[in-house]
This record gives sequence, structure tokens and C-alpha cells, in this order.
Amino acid sequence: MTSAAPKVYVAVVGVGLVGAEFINQMLSIPPLNSPFHLVSLTSTTRTISSHTSPITSATSWKSDLAASADRPDLPKLTAQLSALVSPSQKVALIDNTSSEDVAAMYPTWLNAGISVITPNKKAFSGDIALYEQIIAASKTGGRFLNEATVGAGLPVISTLKDLVATGDRIIKIEGVFSGTMSYIFNEFSTGKSDGPAFSSVVRIAREKGYTEPHPADDLNGFDVARKLTILSRIVSSSALPKLQSFASVQTTSLIPAALENIPTGDEFIARLPEFDDHFAKMRAAASAEGKVLRFVGVVDVLNGQVTAGLEKYPTTHPFATSLGGSDNIIMFHTERYGARPLIVQGAGAGAAVTAMGVLGDLLKLT
Amino acid sequence: MTSAAPKVYVAVVGVGLVGAEFINQMLSIPPLNSPFHLVSLTSTTRTISSHTSPITSATSWKSDLAASADRPDLPKLTAQLSALVSPSQKVALIDNTSSEDVAAMYPTWLNAGISVITPNKKAFSGDIALYEQIIAASKTGGRFLNEATVGAGLPVISTLKDLVATGDRIIKIEGVFSGTMSYIFNEFSTGKSDGPAFSSVVRIAREKGYTEPHPADDLNGFDVARKLTILSRIVSSSALPKLQSFASVQTTSLIPAALENIPTGDEFIARLPEFDDHFAKMRAAASAEGKVLRFVGVVDVLNGQVTAGLEKYPTTHPFATSLGGSDNIIMFHTERYGARPLIVQGAGAGAAVTAMGVLGDLLKLT
Repeated sequence: MTSAAPKVYVAVVGVGLVGAEFINQMLSIPPLNSPFHLVSLTSTTRTISSHTSPITSATSWKSDLAASADRPDLPKLTAQLSALVSPSQKVALIDNTSSEDVAAMYPTWLNAGISVITPNKKAFSGDIALYEQIIAASKTGGRFLNEATVGAGLPVISTLKDLVATGDRIIKIEGVFSGTMSYIFNEFSTGKSDGPAFSSVVRIAREKGYTEPHPADDLNGFDVARKLTILSRIVSSSALPKLQSFASVQTTSLIPAALENIPTGDEFIARLPEFDDHFAKMRAAASAEGKVLRFVGVVDVLNGQVTAGLEKYPTTHPFATSLGGSDNIIMFHTERYGARPLIVQGAGAGAAVTAMGVLGDLLKLT
Repeated sequence: MTSAAPKVYVAVVGVGLVGAEFINQMLSIPPLNSPFHLVSLTSTTRTISSHTSPITSATSWKSDLAASADRPDLPKLTAQLSALVSPSQKVALIDNTSSEDVAAMYPTWLNAGISVITPNKKAFSGDIALYEQIIAASKTGGRFLNEATVGAGLPVISTLKDLVATGDRIIKIEGVFSGTMSYIFNEFSTGKSDGPAFSSVVRIAREKGYTEPHPADDLNGFDVARKLTILSRIVSSSALPKLQSFASVQTTSLIPAALENIPTGDEFIARLPEFDDHFAKMRAAASAEGKVLRFVGVVDVLNGQVTAGLEKYPTTHPFATSLGGSDNIIMFHTERYGARPLIVQGAGAGAAVTAMGVLGDLLKLT
């Protein structure tokens, strides 16, 4: 970046954990080097906007936003940002929410020439009609960049896009895509025939903040299915099923049938021990084969299948030997990489690394 | 890419294994989608150039080049390409050589607005004066992109640049950066106290084409030192020594002192068995500690050191469990990633993946 680089006007929607961290990381770039003008912030209840006097203070933006009398108004924001787009000025909308409503705005923004950068998986893993509108709009309008939707700050989507764009043939993408599932099974299944009870591992994971408030929202596998949908659509092979949405992924939920409609996380945790035997038996069966259990996602181009579920891997496999904590690991099996896949591994969740993935995308606009 | 994307004029210098593969990959992009005009090819003995009638045939470029009467003339090429640079037209020079002479031209090209993309390590790991000229020229002129200088097509440099640009603090980069060294030690040291003789592993690696014709050119560690120099300069921390060139890296060569000036690879291989005991003892000592030997490169920002040499790692470490073949593995230890590093792994050499790294960089210009 140099002072000669064109300015990029940035609007942030969503100022929760990831949003706040993103704003702080962006404002940490020394102003003389920074190509970014932060012109708008929007929370669920308030908004501030000023393209003539950008937000520059990492210490006061929160109180400034809290003091604002203006309510969120995405159509008005759209009009303000559209007016800033010009051949010499770029505008980026950073969606740090997980909102479907915000995601539904992407085609409008892209068509107005506003680039959209986001860790929000909804648009890219939801209804195919919205996704196709986004692709169409990005061809003539703004760019959309969503590295942080899979693996947070890990180079997963950029790597896959490079493989595809340079003409490599994707054979299979296989990985542990959920930090929560990674933690649970790294603790639960180490290759030994016994170990801690499944319910206690889930309870501790919840206490550490690794699960959603209701653990069923992790154990249903939907987060993995959404990430697989995003990757499948980038692979865009005729050998793969055209996923109407993440619900089209063959996902094997870990929620016991009897617990499927438990309304609260507390109640779910209280009843989960009833199923400890079930999980212990699966662990023992895997151990008897010299294997561990891992909840993996697979985009199998060769066999035309996209699946999420519990699988067994030998204790010598990287999913067993190399994983720890709540790491993600993603293996790209391709024609050029042959017998030994390209592997990316590391923390795949958390505000700091997610915000970094978003900021990395924003830097691509400069 | 759309048909609306501005055209990029591309000149290729160096049409050996990587160069030929690059040309074929680039020409495989369907012409309607391709933003690239291949306007010049230069080998060590010949050149062809035509910006009005670009080279489009993957089947005839070799014979067309062989049939040319024109000798390589980099100053003339520079003039031709400079004339193509305009606000609406980009020009990229792809250096697929390993030549110091070609590398010395980068500042001239960059100053003329020509972007330089290359797997050639010479300029970025050589004299600091040339490197600083390149950095200065790229600030106002063309871009330089060198992903394929480290780890071939693996996302190593782009990942490091993103970490640095988004404000993460690099603590240590540690890896197996040489495919040759990876193969040799994956075969030689598996954690057991015995195994094949070092000389036989090197001889077989040479027969398979994994080493340079003279294996001392791998065993001296210079390739690793060059890659560490490239990464250190990107980290650009005041805590690190300012490397005058790759020769400033603390490199522990594996060439036995008595074999340091052996002129030919054949003679070197014939005499290497004299030192099998030496290497076997190191392997046994590592094994007694439950460790393997790996030739690693380390950019240790915390301790201000850049080193290349043989180190011992526990048999449970990813350098022991996860490596195979001639894989590279690179671990980024950073503040944001905390206790568990970001890891990139896979084939780090070979024409197909190296050319892919180069083409991936070229696509970033569009």
C-alpha cells in the first residue's frame, strides 16, 4: 500500500465480537498507509454514517455508535454508499452479521458497484437462487469475497479458487471444518477403547464457549454442511450434485432422535448422558480397528457426493495425529497434487482469526 | 473473469520444465474467458514476439520458437513491453528462469510499469541492494509476485503477507522447505534406531531426479537459506537481523568437510558412503530420545535468528507424523494463532505445482 493507492470507503454492518475485532484491526493500520475510510457502522439497534468525516478512533467508535440516535436503515445506507462508487473510488460493505436479511441485500449492493466482504455463510450456503444472483451481479458490479466463511483466517477459499482457476482438477476435499466438532472428538476419541463420556466432553466444550448456547446447533452438522456447500459451489463441477441449499448435503446429525426437539441447551445437556453408551460403543468399535472418530465434511467430486458425518480414520492419519484443540484441517486432493494432498490446518474459529480473514479480503480490493 | 476484464499482455522468459508447463496451463484457459495475450517467448537461444498476433497454440509454440531466427534480447524486449503499458493495459513479465541476469532486470521492468511474476528465488534472496530496488520500484511501478519461490503452488507467501498486513505478530516460522531434504530424511529417519544408509538414500533420491545433478547443491542447505531470506524480508521485523543475502542465514551444511570440493555428482555419490556411520550415529542418537531428524528452516522472530540445519523432532510432531514423499510443511506461529500454529503442507516442488503458483499470481493482476 502506498499513499498513491486509491481510497476504499468501508461500511461495517454488525459490530459483535468479530465486527468489533475487525474494526479494531482495520483502524490499527497506520493512517498514512491505510487506504481505508471507515464511513459507516451499523449495529442491530443503531447506525452512524459520515463519508466526510470518517471514523478513525479505535477507542471511541463504540461510544459514538451507542450515542447515535439513528436507527439501522439498510436502504438508506445502500443509497449513501452507491453515491460514493466511482471509477476512482471503491466502496466495500463488510457484513459481520450472521443475518439472512443482510445476506439478501448482497445482489443489490453488488449491482450498485459495492463490494461485499463477509464471514456470514448464509448467502453462499443458502438458496441457490440468491447465490446465482450474487454470481451474476459480481460479474459486472462489485466483488464478493468470503474467505472467512470457511476456516476463518485460514487460506481455504483462496486456495481452492486458485486450484480451480489454474485448471487443476479437484478430486476430493476432505476436512474437519467445525472447531467445535474438532474439539469434541479430539477429546473424546484418541484411539483408545475408552475415555471421557461424550456428554461430559460436550458439557465442558459448552462451558468453555466452544459450542453454541444450544449444543444441538453444533451437533446437527449444519455448520459443516454450509461450509461444504460454499466449497462445492466454487468447485462447480458437473460431476457434483447442484446443491439447492446446505440442506441438500447428505448430513448425518449427531443429535440422538429422542433429543431432537429439546428446546433449551441446559435441558439438552442434562439429558445427553442417556446416550453416552451409544457414543462409547462407536468409540470402542473404532478403536478395535485402530481408528479414531472424527466429524468430517467431504466434497467427493470423483463419486459426485457431498457428505457431512462421523467417520473413522486410522490413528496414523493426520486427522488423528496432527489435530488438537479446536483446529480445522482441510485436505485438497487434486490431479496435480497427486497421491499427497495439499493441507491447510489451524484455528478455524475465534474473533481474531475470523476478523483477520475479513481484513485480508478487504486488502485484496486495494 | 469476464470479457469486460482488461487484457493483460504476457511475456515469458524461460521455457524449460516450469516455463513450458506454465505456458500450457495459461493457454488452457478458454480463450473467451482468458484475459491474457501471450506476446513473447524467450529461451536461452531464441525469442519470438508479436503483440498484434498473440501466441495461442499449446501445440505449436515450441516449434514456432525453435524456428525463430531472433536471438534473446532483453533490452529490446523491455522496450517492446514498455510501449504496451497504459492505464487500460497491464503487462506482465514471467521469469521462469533461475538466472541472476534476468533477476537483475526486475527494477527496470517494474519502473517501466511492467509487473514481474516468478518462481526465481535469486532476486528476493540475493543482495539486499537489488531487493530494495525492487521494493522501491514496485511502489510506483509494476507489481512483483513471487508465491512460487517458496513451496511452489502452496499458499505460503500470500498467507504470510496476509498475516503481516492484517497486523498479526509473527513469532516463528518453522518448516521443511526443501522437497529434496524432505524426501531424504523422511526415508532416512523414521524414529527407529536403524534404517537405510544415508548414502543410499541420497543415491536413490538422485536417481529419481529429486536432487540436483550434484547432490551437494541440495545438501549445502542454500535452497532453504534462500527461502528463509525471502520470508524474513516479508516479515520485516526489527527483531530480525537484516540479511545482506541468503549467505547471511546461519546455515549448517550437510556436506562432510572432506567432500566440500568434489567437482562431480558421480564422484560425490561414490565417496558419500565413507560418512554413513556419521549420519547413522546421529539417527541413533535422535531415536534414543524418541525423535527423528529433519532438515528445517526457522525464522525465529522472538530470538532474532534465521537458521537452516538438521534438527530433532519428537516422533509425535507433525514433521514426523504428517510428512511423506517430498512434501513441504510450513508452520506459522503467530500471536493470533496462539499455541497452535497455522500449517500449510503439500508438494513444494515439481513443474505442475510450480507453474500453478506462477499462474495463480498472474491471475491476481486481473
